[in-house]
Amino acid sequence: STVKRQSINVLDRGITANDRSDSTYKIIEIIEEAKKKGVTKIIFPKGRYDFYPTRAQEHYLFISNNDEGLKRVGFPIEGLDQLEIDGQGSQFIFHGFMNPFLVRDAKGITFKNFSIDFERPFHQEAEILAVDDGSMDLAFGEEFPYEITPAGILQFVGIREIPPGYPIFERLERRKDVEKKYGYQSLLEFDKEKRETAYMVYDLWIGNAVKAEHLPGERRVRIFHPKLSGTVGNIMTFAPSRRDYVGFTLTGSEDVIFDNITIHHAGGMGILGENCHNVTVKNSAVTPSKSRYISTTADATHFVNCSGEINLVNNLFENQKDDATNIHGIYAMVDTILDDKTIDVRVQHPHQYGFEFIDKGDLLELVQGPSMITYGANKVAEVERLSKEITRVKFVDTLDKRFQVGDSVAEVRDYPDVLIKGNIIRRNRARGMLLNCRGKTLVEDNYFHSPGAAILFEGDANFWFEQGGVSDAVIRNNVFDNSVFGVWGNSVLDVAAGISDEYQDKARYNKNILVEGNTFNVYDKGLLLDLFSVDGLIFRNNKIVKTQAYPERQIEKEFFNIEHSDNINIEDNNEFIGFE
Amino acid sequence: STVKRQSINVLDRGITANDRSDSTYKIIEIIEEAKKKGVTKIIFPKGRYDFYPTRAQEHYLFISNNDEGLKRVGFPIEGLDQLEIDGQGSQFIFHGFMNPFLVRDAKGITFKNFSIDFERPFHQEAEILAVDDGSMDLAFGEEFPYEITPAGILQFVGIREIPPGYPIFERLERRKDVEKKYGYQSLLEFDKEKRETAYMVYDLWIGNAVKAEHLPGERRVRIFHPKLSGTVGNIMTFAPSRRDYVGFTLTGSEDVIFDNITIHHAGGMGILGENCHNVTVKNSAVTPSKSRYISTTADATHFVNCSGEINLVNNLFENQKDDATNIHGIYAMVDTILDDKTIDVRVQHPHQYGFEFIDKGDLLELVQGPSMITYGANKVAEVERLSKEITRVKFVDTLDKRFQVGDSVAEVRDYPDVLIKGNIIRRNRARGMLLNCRGKTLVEDNYFHSPGAAILFEGDANFWFEQGGVSDAVIRNNVFDNSVFGVWGNSVLDVAAGISDEYQDKARYNKNILVEGNTFNVYDKGLLLDLFSVDGLIFRNNKIVKTQAYPERQIEKEFFNIEHSDNINIEDNNEFIGFE
Ligand SMILES: [Ca+2]
Repeated sequence: STVKRQSINVLDRGITANDRSDSTYKIIEIIEEAKKKGVTKIIFPKGRYDFYPTRAQEHYLFISNNDEGLKRVGFPIEGLDQLEIDGQGSQFIFHGFMNPFLVRDAKGITFKNFSIDFERPFHQEAEILAVDDGSMDLAFGEEFPYEITPAGILQFVGIREIPPGYPIFERLERRKDVEKKYGYQSLLEFDKEKRETAYMVYDLWIGNAVKAEHLPGERRVRIFHPKLSGTVGNIMTFAPSRRDYVGFTLTGSEDVIFDNITIHHAGGMGILGENCHNVTVKNSAVTPSKSRYISTTADATHFVNCSGEINLVNNLFENQKDDATNIHGIYAMVDTILDDKTIDVRVQHPHQYGFEFIDKGDLLELVQGPSMITYGANKVAEVERLSKEITRVKFVDTLDKRFQVGDSVAEVRDYPDVLIKGNIIRRNRARGMLLNCRGKTLVEDNYFHSPGAAILFEGDANFWFEQGGVSDAVIRNNVFDNSVFGVWGNSVLDVAAGISDEYQDKARYNKNILVEGNTFNVYDKGLLLDLFSVDGLIFRNNKIVKTQAYPERQIEKEFFNIEHSDNINIEDNNEFIGFE
Repeated sequence: STVKRQSINVLDRGITANDRSDSTYKIIEIIEEAKKKGVTKIIFPKGRYDFYPTRAQEHYLFISNNDEGLKRVGFPIEGLDQLEIDGQGSQFIFHGFMNPFLVRDAKGITFKNFSIDFERPFHQEAEILAVDDGSMDLAFGEEFPYEITPAGILQFVGIREIPPGYPIFERLERRKDVEKKYGYQSLLEFDKEKRETAYMVYDLWIGNAVKAEHLPGERRVRIFHPKLSGTVGNIMTFAPSRRDYVGFTLTGSEDVIFDNITIHHAGGMGILGENCHNVTVKNSAVTPSKSRYISTTADATHFVNCSGEINLVNNLFENQKDDATNIHGIYAMVDTILDDKTIDVRVQHPHQYGFEFIDKGDLLELVQGPSMITYGANKVAEVERLSKEITRVKFVDTLDKRFQVGDSVAEVRDYPDVLIKGNIIRRNRARGMLLNCRGKTLVEDNYFHSPGAAILFEGDANFWFEQGGVSDAVIRNNVFDNSVFGVWGNSVLDVAAGISDEYQDKARYNKNILVEGNTFNVYDKGLLLDLFSVDGLIFRNNKIVKTQAYPERQIEKEFFNIEHSDNINIEDNNEFIGFE
């Protein structure tokens, strides 16, 4: 289009770099100006820019798979058409408790050439000095300040993050310091040298309060819990108790592009896209800063109820506390049947509260809870949000007689085509990725090294209520490098589904999967494929190479486990190298 | 007026009594119907009605002096003119985490003849079985379920509160059960027989997590903390860690009347009125239900930045965890001076966050922080809310040169006339009431028996930022029955002000107080009056009667302490009875 591409250089609007001054309110004004004047580019000349919560814009957000709350947003990008934010190699440092980016009801938004980080991380890290029966000695890094309360309980605290030159009234500031708490709920041990989760370690669910004592020496503490285990010299990480501070929240938006963006940290997921159309993440990274072992404290990226295309190309996803990506829909459970056309549906997991996906005119699939078999589809005539849990839905046609309380609805939509190409996924907690998307899915030329399954296909309508069921997935020319050296899953490629026994013969939740040309470096004869409720899978021209990377496990079933599936074709052109 | 007084009987709209069914959504629809059709009365025939959060209406509320949050409201009364809710003697029982009543931008709202309570209280109570060095043995009442985590930490839990006949999916319900936590932060000991705070006990700030062990016997626990002290046989109460669930939140409304309303419990204040005009509470009570020792977990009633009249007449306020009432304005501190007409003000206490009181056209007094001396007033030309902390204010006139960062603004308004007559105030924590209101204040024919000061006049613009400074207060014909048997204040009538030393001679914050015809039952020669920064007080025709109610204290100053005050007249017609 011939529209003159106006752009704003933030330095021309009073923002200053490299001085730790607060750029929050100014960037909010600049975004507002861009929206009014149709400016399509905001430029941050290379430098460090700091953002504090005091003048951030507040929005109460229900963010799928993260925690709801009043979010103090640094970059509120709403109802905007065509905007590019180019950091030109800048560092954006966020302070205290805030959400860096919100993209809502916006179109054509591009983020380029900058990194985001938080001054005070939301997780904690400490070196293991000693392990005894019911206690562990730890040395915390400088970035992870803590207190031991008079009650003898370990609590993690904040630091004073105030822009230079700001008036400090000590008594008032101290009262605010006390409010800065960083909760915890579980521990996870990382291998100090390999910077990945230690072999076969579990999350230690220690709760949000443990007994502790100071030890001689700086930042040294002994903590007490019956379930403590670990290897001296490794790094013990504390997970935050909530997912409140997502890096980039994308909701109800279109054509969002991340290009050469680095996410060093977030107090939840790095990028969460919900009800979005076309999202691309390329040449970017989720990776720790400084010498930290953790990048984002939950998934690197995560997409719910999206459409169009999701492209993850040439990215590095490492050291995040969950999967590199998870692409799925949502089931809402039938709570009450009011009449033959009207039901109340209720979302069942707190991270689904407030998630709005049912709109007038939508086509919903009516799904039998225990089997996820679709009774049929019905169009939405009227919809009313009663609360963050309950939505009242009136349908155009009378409801299928079989449909009952405990069954679910999900949106029949233009399921997104998923392209995952040329990425490095490693050293994170749990799985490489969860692919629960009915659109065309291509996973090609990626390098996987995750402690759980490299790829998990799943879905259920009885506990997690995540709609999945691939229908066209190609897994081609990837390197699965010694996956499953941890406890999250028992196969490199894992296809599961929440289907109760009585329906296992009938239901085929995932279909039409091609696994070809991949290299599986494996340290024993553990499962490459664990299939359940699949109709149609071809495993051909893959290379399976034996390595010595990890101690071998006790193997029940070698390489392949296939249950309640049809048309599974493990061709004989797969090459097993290095096995006796 | 001749408008036909239509009314709705809830039983005609599908609500049923005495069956624990969920009336929440139906009453929301009834209120909506009343608003549309101009119905002015909603009747609940006598019975028990239950309200659950699942279908409550959600509002993000900043509630002054309580905690902000997404509130799940049972009775949302907004933008309504003339509505009476008559319970005809009914009991309203609320379940889980919800806010019973919200009255916002409404006019002529009357509540009559019903009580409110919560099935699961937000505080805890236990009998003290034993006290040792650093530990205490407790027996919890049945209403206060708890767990001891694997880490050995005491946590209080919820109960399953589900309407009868509602489908229960055990796995899903169990996941929700885990979310129900009831936090704690401090302990306060009550005398078992007298049902009041034990003599001279302090709040024990034990934090939100203490070590604990099960003891043999039902609901018996030993807790550990260095600061534990108490008397075996007394009741130890645990205060909740937040004020999230106010009974009645009144904001921006007019002519609100409570008549024969009983508030048995709330997870914060009973009635909080902010920016309201004319509020009356009469023939009502804040009093514990069943055999509990606590009614509301914070003030019984509390009014901020109100105008017109506040009437508290013939009420019982007992066993609330703070004052019976507190009537004050608010100071907002100058954070930044942008130009000679524009400043950013910042509220300083988290319970003031989001409090909006500055409107275009308002007259604001400009106040010197350390002295609360008013430089002068200036009119608001423009106001912009930047965040829940910061408001940008542009004035009509150039600012007084002396006005600087650290000083404050407050609203010059039609300060409400306060009538407090015929009330019984007893067995609560802390003071009888805080009267920080510049309107005509009459406190007459009340009975006070609180562990702190019976009446406290105060205000400051350097820590609590509460605007006070009475200008016409009459304290007449009350019975102050053995006040100050606790640690909250050191005089029956206490007049204070946050004025730093260098201004104590100049500033006179409270003016024109008449104390006459009262009976002071006192157990020693402790202070009846402790005056600071007062101009004009008359103490006449009062009777001071010596009792043996409590052990006598070490007295430094007998009866009267007067500092930095003028025109203080302790007349000689006050009768001292029973003193040697
Ligand atoms: Ca939709």
